[in-house]
Amino acid sequence: MNIIKVSSESRTSAVAGAIAGVVREQDHADVQAIGAGAVNQAVKAVAIARGYLKEDGISIICLPEFTSVDIGGKERTAIRLVIETR
Amino acid sequence: MNIIKVSSESRTSAVAGAIAGVVREQDHADVQAIGAGAVNQAVKAVAIARGYLKEDGISIICLPEFTSVDIGGKERTAIRLVIETR
Repeated sequence: MNIIKVSSESRTSAVAGAIAGVVREQDHADVQAIGAGAVNQAVKAVAIARGYLKEDGISIICLPEFTSVDIGGKERTAIRLVIETR
Repeated sequence: MNIIKVSSESRTSAVAGAIAGVVREQDHADVQAIGAGAVNQAVKAVAIARGYLKEDGISIICLPEFTSVDIGGKERTAIRLVIETR
């Protein structure tokens, strides 16, 4: 499964484009972020992607959840934003 | 309309409880945050609230959007997380 990984340095418009592209193909996308700066960029990207997809008549919803990821042998808690169409 | 305002200092479990309470009564809640720290707390609170409400058989979705707010005469961009049931 492809996960769109977002960092605090990610450009929101680029992430939004990635989300929109994956949703158009698969009706679903998973966006993952670790830390406040990254989560903020991810949420803004989803807001922008909603606008992009609305133009195509696609309405997306966001389901936030916690997930554990392994970063260099250390377990970190990440936020995953599951994106679905409705 | 009542808006649940979240800051970077907000306790996620308290915000989650507020979201769950408002959704149980109104099938809808608006959560607002300004800045990365606040948006992070808000998203974590929604993830926790999803768990609380799932126990009641209520499934919530999150619709992130940008909104403008007036803070001491200055216009700031906030993130609003619109919470709906599905």
